[in-house]
Amino acid sequence: MKTKVAIIGATGYTGVELLRLLLHHPEVEVTALTSQKYAGVQIGQVFPSLAKQLQIKCEELSVEQVSKKTDFVFTALPHKTAMETVPLFYRSGKRVVDLSADFRLKDSSVYERWYQKHTAIDLLGESVYGLPELHRDKIRSAKIVGNPGCYPTGALIGLIPLIKKGLISLEGIVVDSKSGVSGAGRDVVLESLFCEVNEGVKAYKIFAHRHTPEIEQEASLLAQKKIAVAFVPHLIPMDRGILTTLYVQLTKKMKTEELLDAFQESYEGEPFVRIYPKGKLPNTKDVRGSNFCDIGAVVSETDGRAVVVTAIDNLVKGASGEAIQNMNIMLGYPEAMGLDVAPLFP
Amino acid sequence: MKTKVAIIGATGYTGVELLRLLLHHPEVEVTALTSQKYAGVQIGQVFPSLAKQLQIKCEELSVEQVSKKTDFVFTALPHKTAMETVPLFYRSGKRVVDLSADFRLKDSSVYERWYQKHTAIDLLGESVYGLPELHRDKIRSAKIVGNPGCYPTGALIGLIPLIKKGLISLEGIVVDSKSGVSGAGRDVVLESLFCEVNEGVKAYKIFAHRHTPEIEQEASLLAQKKIAVAFVPHLIPMDRGILTTLYVQLTKKMKTEELLDAFQESYEGEPFVRIYPKGKLPNTKDVRGSNFCDIGAVVSETDGRAVVVTAIDNLVKGASGEAIQNMNIMLGYPEAMGLDVAPLFP
Amino acid sequence: MKTKVAIIGATGYTGVELLRLLLHHPEVEVTALTSQKYAGVQIGQVFPSLAKQLQIKCEELSVEQVSKKTDFVFTALPHKTAMETVPLFYRSGKRVVDLSADFRLKDSSVYERWYQKHTAIDLLGESVYGLPELHRDKIRSAKIVGNPGCYPTGALIGLIPLIKKGLISLEGIVVDSKSGVSGAGRDVVLESLFCEVNEGVKAYKIFAHRHTPEIEQEASLLAQKKIAVAFVPHLIPMDRGILTTLYVQLTKKMKTEELLDAFQESYEGEPFVRIYPKGKLPNTKDVRGSNFCDIGAVVSETDGRAVVVTAIDNLVKGASGEAIQNMNIMLGYPEAMGLDVAPLFP
Amino acid sequence: MKTKVAIIGATGYTGVELLRLLLHHPEVEVTALTSQKYAGVQIGQVFPSLAKQLQIKCEELSVEQVSKKTDFVFTALPHKTAMETVPLFYRSGKRVVDLSADFRLKDSSVYERWYQKHTAIDLLGESVYGLPELHRDKIRSAKIVGNPGCYPTGALIGLIPLIKKGLISLEGIVVDSKSGVSGAGRDVVLESLFCEVNEGVKAYKIFAHRHTPEIEQEASLLAQKKIAVAFVPHLIPMDRGILTTLYVQLTKKMKTEELLDAFQESYEGEPFVRIYPKGKLPNTKDVRGSNFCDIGAVVSETDGRAVVVTAIDNLVKGASGEAIQNMNIMLGYPEAMGLDVAPLFP
Repeated sequence: MKTKVAIIGATGYTGVELLRLLLHHPEVEVTALTSQKYAGVQIGQVFPSLAKQLQIKCEELSVEQVSKKTDFVFTALPHKTAMETVPLFYRSGKRVVDLSADFRLKDSSVYERWYQKHTAIDLLGESVYGLPELHRDKIRSAKIVGNPGCYPTGALIGLIPLIKKGLISLEGIVVDSKSGVSGAGRDVVLESLFCEVNEGVKAYKIFAHRHTPEIEQEASLLAQKKIAVAFVPHLIPMDRGILTTLYVQLTKKMKTEELLDAFQESYEGEPFVRIYPKGKLPNTKDVRGSNFCDIGAVVSETDGRAVVVTAIDNLVKGASGEAIQNMNIMLGYPEAMGLDVAPLFP
Repeated sequence: MKTKVAIIGATGYTGVELLRLLLHHPEVEVTALTSQKYAGVQIGQVFPSLAKQLQIKCEELSVEQVSKKTDFVFTALPHKTAMETVPLFYRSGKRVVDLSADFRLKDSSVYERWYQKHTAIDLLGESVYGLPELHRDKIRSAKIVGNPGCYPTGALIGLIPLIKKGLISLEGIVVDSKSGVSGAGRDVVLESLFCEVNEGVKAYKIFAHRHTPEIEQEASLLAQKKIAVAFVPHLIPMDRGILTTLYVQLTKKMKTEELLDAFQESYEGEPFVRIYPKGKLPNTKDVRGSNFCDIGAVVSETDGRAVVVTAIDNLVKGASGEAIQNMNIMLGYPEAMGLDVAPLFP
Repeated sequence: MKTKVAIIGATGYTGVELLRLLLHHPEVEVTALTSQKYAGVQIGQVFPSLAKQLQIKCEELSVEQVSKKTDFVFTALPHKTAMETVPLFYRSGKRVVDLSADFRLKDSSVYERWYQKHTAIDLLGESVYGLPELHRDKIRSAKIVGNPGCYPTGALIGLIPLIKKGLISLEGIVVDSKSGVSGAGRDVVLESLFCEVNEGVKAYKIFAHRHTPEIEQEASLLAQKKIAVAFVPHLIPMDRGILTTLYVQLTKKMKTEELLDAFQESYEGEPFVRIYPKGKLPNTKDVRGSNFCDIGAVVSETDGRAVVVTAIDNLVKGASGEAIQNMNIMLGYPEAMGLDVAPLFP
Repeated sequence: MKTKVAIIGATGYTGVELLRLLLHHPEVEVTALTSQKYAGVQIGQVFPSLAKQLQIKCEELSVEQVSKKTDFVFTALPHKTAMETVPLFYRSGKRVVDLSADFRLKDSSVYERWYQKHTAIDLLGESVYGLPELHRDKIRSAKIVGNPGCYPTGALIGLIPLIKKGLISLEGIVVDSKSGVSGAGRDVVLESLFCEVNEGVKAYKIFAHRHTPEIEQEASLLAQKKIAVAFVPHLIPMDRGILTTLYVQLTKKMKTEELLDAFQESYEGEPFVRIYPKGKLPNTKDVRGSNFCDIGAVVSETDGRAVVVTAIDNLVKGASGEAIQNMNIMLGYPEAMGLDVAPLFP
């Protein structure tokens, strides 16, 4: 029998992406969609792309109602709302993958510095940071998974082998990310209008983006030492994709091939990580619509600096695809089930 | 046992799209890829999007070699080259879906007026025009299917019910199409450079586009009367998608709802046609990456004119998806097998 | 002494475009900008593109205050608001170019059918439809100029010679227009979000767009016979530009060259109309940022149909540039003054 | 009398941009255009954007012929060809602004390591690196100006005040640049096709881009100490614009406001540099089509790192606009003459 799944907050971009991907998942059936704005409306009318494939109406959120008809819950709500909703599902016995920021940060004081008061501190211990490449084992039995942010996903997958293997100085790490516009969500704001975004590129929230503590938490945990990164996100005129360019200082002499070998070794067996050979570099266009994270790297042998580049689709590996990967792990399905979809090129 | 399939000319945009889709086809295995330019190269190196999903090298075309290891052939070659290659596979007993223009036009003199001398006239009788919505029955047993052009697919699916049911005047039909750039293929020409195309829109080949006779052939056949359409294609700055706006004169008083009902009735049971309700109009963005053809329509009750709008992904329903749909019909598979992929939105 | 100019509603896209162009006008000085939203803010902070070039603060609209410090007024307000504001400036003795729809339609009943109640009907007789290619002489002495809509500008410049010279049937005219997103203005609505628009194309308001009566009014006036056009606007993913494809039936046998000659003759001496030679077709990219309207045409000799294509920048010739052209005519300046700016390519 | 100007290699993107801008220069007349490919063709046919504004035919390059009819020469040739051509004009007594890389690097061995053999080494001493913000005085009397590369312009304008005032460590500087596609020129290559570039972002030539030695030369000269930067260029899907994000380590405690004040002070009086106030960051969209370089900055007070962001239009301040600025300086015209054009927004 298929697992019955709910999507809470189904009408944002991560919601429609969850639906697109879950439609192909052989062991899952979506049985509840909630939406404040579109309650009572067929999902195929909210998103014509889904018409003729899924007959299900959005409903207002009632934890009780949803709990009755589902086995597993994705919450795709804004932070704060997530914090209020997830505990209710938790208490009704549901396992949850939460796509907001509310269950990612382990230290509530860090959360409160970057966001606002946390009202479910007791559950932070229950939740697991949902980056399978880092925490697969803990995710397996987690009750709540805090699905990683899009930028942290791209940054951390590039940093993990470097830190784990002690290849880099933990000082002075630079994380320069370039994101498509869907990362800003479907909120109707001036900054996301076509004519404001198209044919332009800008940096934003320098040293102040809320994904910074998330990158630093996981990097520090891995290094067992406090790491501060200089993280700058940029907005570029495309729908999907995040390219992250990492600048690091190597701790020992290495060639590009050796660095790539270290990545290869670290990610042996990972279903969604692809390491590029020397001389090739990833492009977000080659991962679009898929759960892949592509990685390239170059070493400057003269001064021991290295650049690592990662490419993901922010809505897939950076959000909904990763959430399904986490669900697969939690439910004991093959990790790539429903996610073995090739990128859309061109 | 899976059907073994070859793609001849695998490294253009229709080739990579065939591969993307066939990767999900449960009854098909791709066992041969040919490419003049990339012979000897792993397909995952030609198209990094396909890396880690398909291990197969491009080879130079040898009909003999390919025939040995495959059961079914897609030819994605330029016209003229197709005309020389398809007969060889035909004679070696293979059934072929040809994505070029060479087996679409029934009248060789029409072909020769728009293209060049036809050197396989004897096979024109064998081939079937591969629009399932028109010729499903003939396709079933066809040896050669001439897969429709991208523009004709969008235009004809909009015209079929109107002509079949005698709803419109056969004079004065206007077909105004807007296409993304991938329709021009992967040829390296000035006109396809990013900076030449982006932030602009133009009409091209007015009254002179080679898809005109194709639209007229099928429309005339259906009407059993010679139809001439005014067809103007336009190039717009996006990767994929064709929106076709049809202007017709109704032969009797109708309301918008009645016209839409006629479409609904005509396409009852069609797996890939979606009719929009009154007040909604299709957007190519809602079919991107899928085999759907979305249709909307509006009647001007004051003067009896009507506008019908169709949206397809030119690389899927307008090329590779339709080719697979044809293959499914030819091989007796469920028609939507491998094609039940939801559009990528946004 | 320079003419002192006010822009009422300066912080939309037509407002910033008026400013961009007026900065180069040697005889004009902008001395008042009004904005409800940005009152008190330097215009260079509203639009960083204008920083360091113009030091002027937005103010709340006071007709009295603005009248004191200006000689000439551009109103770039939404319709209805314009209708309430323009009469006040008129009564205070100012000549006005109004960029809204409120003073374009001569017949108030037509206006009221497409918009809402008209509250300044008495001024409709005073106002002139501001298409210089049609009404230059009347514009010269007009007190109020109703600056044409963007679509009507592109459509009418293509139709004028055809109608004037009696070259086409007045029945069955099709006007298929493709517009960039800035035509929708700077309103913060879901439909204008980058991710909703990018990589898609759609038709909208078929037979129902408010520019229809405007095209029909001027075409009918010229023909001295009622003309109904089938007008369908489309939205395409670019900032600026409108391409209009006109489908007409010629009343006599003509070759493409002859049709182009007719255009050439009609527009002899027009500073902003460029006729393309046979075999060349316009692209909005070649007029971007300029006041040009480029025209191409093709005749189908077999059936006497013709296609005429026009390209404009909707914010320049379709709005702010045309408004300045009208101002130049009204004030006796050379018509191209301040508008002799070359298109931005690429 | 106007200065007669030649553009050698007029049919690339920097050529058409020189023409667009020079059309508005009140003291300059373009009297010769050369093009190998389009010799004999009116420039308005090569670039329809220029039609009706400039009547001049492209001709094959003859230094003698061109020298006869011009006073001043812009060479917009590929490197190597430039190196062969510039000396001829020099010897015929013409002053030249060269837009290639051939006269930028002072040390021929550096040039030869990054490019190829240099055949005009004797002229390297004659030439001045044409960044007015650095070398205005020397440019005034230069015979040959090596017009800076697009990336170095954006990087150096961001670095100059920091180095000059000793505000940063000279170690570990990161230069992460994001460029529109026109930076790749008008060469017809696969990588520049619309469908290869659109909806994607990639890094390229990591540690290996030829603009690296140019940035390092000028930065080192200024610091009087050898500086090595980690420079990574990225390609993003837009026509024009370069955003450069600089990561530096401050040598003393500073606030963001103080850093911005330092920039303000350094660039006091510069006609084309705009410093953003705290809390605002530049967007390439706000400089498009103009010669401005916009600058923003943020300090991380906790660890003394700072990020500086600069935005230019790569074809204007990064190429043709800067070339005209240099010409103005060389000829004693006001530096902003012909360049006082407002950015095109949106």
